[in-house]
Amino acid sequence: MPTLRIALAQVNPTVGDLAGNAATVREWSRAAADSGAQIAAFPEMMLTGYPVEDLVFRKSFVAASTAALRSLATDLAADGLGELPVVVGYLDADGGPRNALAVLHGGEVLTTYYKHHLPNYGVFDEDRYFEPGDTLTVIRLAGVDIALTICEDIWQAGGPFAVAGRARVGLVVNINGSPYELNKDDVRLSLVQRRAAEAGAAIAYVNMVGGQDELVFDGDSIVVTAGGTLLARAPQFAEHLMIHDLDLPAAEPDAPTGDLGEMSVRRVEVPAAPPAPSSLVEGGIADRVTDEAEVWHALVLGLRDYVEKNGFRSVVLGLSGGIDSSVVAAIAVDALGSDRVVGVSMPSQHSSGHSKDDAADLAKRTGLDYRIEPIQPMVDAFLANMSLSGLAVENLQARVRGVILMALSNQEGHLVLTTGNKSELAVGYSTLYGDSVGGFNPLKDVPKTLVWKLARWRDAEAERRGAEPPIPENSIAKPPSAELRPGQLDTDSLPDYDELDAILAGYVDGDLGRDQLVAEGHDPALVDRVLRMVDVAEYKRRQSAPGTKISIKAFGRDRRLPITNRWREHPS
Amino acid sequence: MPTLRIALAQVNPTVGDLAGNAATVREWSRAAADSGAQIAAFPEMMLTGYPVEDLVFRKSFVAASTAALRSLATDLAADGLGELPVVVGYLDADGGPRNALAVLHGGEVLTTYYKHHLPNYGVFDEDRYFEPGDTLTVIRLAGVDIALTICEDIWQAGGPFAVAGRARVGLVVNINGSPYELNKDDVRLSLVQRRAAEAGAAIAYVNMVGGQDELVFDGDSIVVTAGGTLLARAPQFAEHLMIHDLDLPAAEPDAPTGDLGEMSVRRVEVPAAPPAPSSLVEGGIADRVTDEAEVWHALVLGLRDYVEKNGFRSVVLGLSGGIDSSVVAAIAVDALGSDRVVGVSMPSQHSSGHSKDDAADLAKRTGLDYRIEPIQPMVDAFLANMSLSGLAVENLQARVRGVILMALSNQEGHLVLTTGNKSELAVGYSTLYGDSVGGFNPLKDVPKTLVWKLARWRDAEAERRGAEPPIPENSIAKPPSAELRPGQLDTDSLPDYDELDAILAGYVDGDLGRDQLVAEGHDPALVDRVLRMVDVAEYKRRQSAPGTKISIKAFGRDRRLPITNRWREHPS
Repeated sequence: MPTLRIALAQVNPTVGDLAGNAATVREWSRAAADSGAQIAAFPEMMLTGYPVEDLVFRKSFVAASTAALRSLATDLAADGLGELPVVVGYLDADGGPRNALAVLHGGEVLTTYYKHHLPNYGVFDEDRYFEPGDTLTVIRLAGVDIALTICEDIWQAGGPFAVAGRARVGLVVNINGSPYELNKDDVRLSLVQRRAAEAGAAIAYVNMVGGQDELVFDGDSIVVTAGGTLLARAPQFAEHLMIHDLDLPAAEPDAPTGDLGEMSVRRVEVPAAPPAPSSLVEGGIADRVTDEAEVWHALVLGLRDYVEKNGFRSVVLGLSGGIDSSVVAAIAVDALGSDRVVGVSMPSQHSSGHSKDDAADLAKRTGLDYRIEPIQPMVDAFLANMSLSGLAVENLQARVRGVILMALSNQEGHLVLTTGNKSELAVGYSTLYGDSVGGFNPLKDVPKTLVWKLARWRDAEAERRGAEPPIPENSIAKPPSAELRPGQLDTDSLPDYDELDAILAGYVDGDLGRDQLVAEGHDPALVDRVLRMVDVAEYKRRQSAPGTKISIKAFGRDRRLPITNRWREHPS
Repeated sequence: MPTLRIALAQVNPTVGDLAGNAATVREWSRAAADSGAQIAAFPEMMLTGYPVEDLVFRKSFVAASTAALRSLATDLAADGLGELPVVVGYLDADGGPRNALAVLHGGEVLTTYYKHHLPNYGVFDEDRYFEPGDTLTVIRLAGVDIALTICEDIWQAGGPFAVAGRARVGLVVNINGSPYELNKDDVRLSLVQRRAAEAGAAIAYVNMVGGQDELVFDGDSIVVTAGGTLLARAPQFAEHLMIHDLDLPAAEPDAPTGDLGEMSVRRVEVPAAPPAPSSLVEGGIADRVTDEAEVWHALVLGLRDYVEKNGFRSVVLGLSGGIDSSVVAAIAVDALGSDRVVGVSMPSQHSSGHSKDDAADLAKRTGLDYRIEPIQPMVDAFLANMSLSGLAVENLQARVRGVILMALSNQEGHLVLTTGNKSELAVGYSTLYGDSVGGFNPLKDVPKTLVWKLARWRDAEAERRGAEPPIPENSIAKPPSAELRPGQLDTDSLPDYDELDAILAGYVDGDLGRDQLVAEGHDPALVDRVLRMVDVAEYKRRQSAPGTKISIKAFGRDRRLPITNRWREHPS
């Protein structure tokens, strides 16, 4: 049984940065070769980043991708890495755009493969963008047959993995741009195990890591045996080069080729290979972490990459002393460091003493750049010149704060962070062009009840490490309030957040109707009230900033509802 | 040769309004029967409205659609219309969601058909939403065989029309939710003629009319002979019942059925039919109009339906005396009447005398509700409390105006209209949360050069009718300026609009790369400058209000680009 040393490069590409992504491949291929790897695999669309969306339709972009691929092959050989087969995702255009991978070897593109199963649900629109491939590529390397596949190929039964089984390969490499969702790692392992059984082959699964607009890729690269035994697993949310030695069946001289049912098989011999390993290396199995830790790391990475990849040096946010802005500040400081985070307290006549104290306390704990900008003079100027009352005055205060944050952004170059949580956004409990102002919202997909849990987890984590907990206990414990009128509390307008979040999970993530929610045990009047709020808030949500997606359905791109719509689950 | 009297009901449904849409079908079926029609056809997804997007995933919504269909069948019979076959689009769920049509007759659902070709490009995402049908339904009515098809079925060769040809039908009915694009009517007629040849049958094409978020459906229903001769054509942008008598070949007793290649054929006899017509009726051929008239009517209808269907009574917009806000005001007055439009002049210290005069002149000409709200006191309050300079001060003025408009909206209930044109939006020449504030933007998809043409067309049209031209000549003729600093002109920051719009058309609508644009004769330095502006403005555009789509690619939903993206056509 040959032993093959594989290198899975769990790296963080940037969409559109062909030169930078190619440099990453060269650097990590060097490290893989230094570790004695006989093959190195990089994520889906590694060269272009993922997803590239409508850039696919730009011929100049496709041409740049294929040119970068050829240059990369040459450069790897010039680096002295020509013998190492490097599997890398890129964008091709062969009878239509292709979500493709190439094997680079000996300074050339040895062979390619085009993704067969194209996902067109949730955040994916690949039926718009790509033509599906119908040929499975199998390379023979150091006496082992290896089938090459891309992402969704592993999520659907049939197709590449079934054909790989008929082709009697020893290993299937699957390269991914698989976005994070809460608990997706659990689904992922059992999926890889199931598909190993279907192919009767070991699987090496490599995923990208990093933030891209609303998506965050969590890594979590995996190696399993044909029998489904987990051999190695990379950590989530960190770049990682996983080197693992795999015992694999020798390639069969008479293994079938050509038409094998759903797909045909193309076989390619890798003419030279690095030598087999002399001592055994294992990739190790990274520990799983709690839900709160997982989400926290996703939000930190999502924010960091949004800021860095878009070229911002710093962020600014309003600090109310409440839980949402405190948690966003802590995430921002974890992502960027306290010297790159500006927090602005913008008290009004309705701001309580504890709000100002709690904001100052958070600033002291985190060390961020703290400013105070009272809003009353600007609010008064509007009130003196217009006849406003009630909700219009409440919203005015939030909008004056928005103008202040945007003025600081224009003057000093910060990205403005929004701090509204998913529960608030869902029911429209925010001011359009007020507290919703900003370029990125870390909590956009985080329900209020989870915001509290994250705060408690982060503080406990600090205590565990002997550091100062960043979030003041008072911000966590006090009843939430928008403080836009005297004595206002969230509970004046909203149900209890435990009940609200449960109904939202059913209605938004689960697409349940009113009657199903009532059948689940929710109070009918409360269901009607919440659904009415959600339906009315659709326009506001569309106008809100992007934010890292952590669940099945964030608001925004992957929730597509008509604005103009008379359908109501509830009595109107 | 039997003569069949058909009724094409070019009506305006509302998404989600199942009861209202069913009532429309009953009312127009009554009118069709009163006109002696033997069959009446309504648009695609008539009962639910179109597009319903993610409502498809709500089981309760699908159930409501099928229940509404059954009730409609019963109600039509109760109305005494049971004998008239009524073809109506709806949402079904038979092995997955279906974009379906039903023939209602005798108080029952006589038969159904599921759309075969599902569009998944441009504004369409039907691969996400629907399962394709694989059976063509042919009804025999009054001795004529009629195949029933839906929208995209007519845009692709092969499939339903080819199979209808093999089934030797006399007529194909095609029901549509086909959105307007500039000059789409020209494409549409030649398409229908081509498909008539493919089927060897006459075609009755009925399209919906009305606005739905960013889409506007233009009607333009068509009847052609098997030879492609245009017999009847409905006007664009208006509801219309088109009654036309068609001479059609008699059904063949031995016409083939069952599997006919790409699809199988289901044949259904309509057991009773209204009597054949005794005198000849023709539908008439509506005149085509100029491009400017077509776009104007599209924008007026798109705005009116957005306002009405979302339950607003009135709109408010800022009037600068410039061309964009003047044109939006004229569109709004045409759409809603002058008593439902509020225009606010918000002069600053940089506003010229002519700006205030021209805004007042427009208000007088259109009769809208005119207000004046100077912004200097509010701007001064910010400047007194913050250290701002340069662009931050320019943006501050635009944002104070945004706060004023939103305060009026909150206080009085108006929908705020945005007035930035497509050229400005493309290059980011606007202030986020400033002049971009608003719920709907009639000019979102209108390039600046077309804004001027529309203004001249509208004024000339008024003169032709002996009415007062709504848009002051001075607003059309003067050089455009944002007036955010002394003596500022658009040309300080932007190229000439003729050149700008030509490059934008290539880069945005045509997906051309830099080198192609240069090869087309554009100045390389100017191309680089414009492309840089467009790429940088992506985030602002995402945050902008919806607006009626009139071209291949509006910004917003149908232009899907990553925000985080390092790819540049131009040297960075």
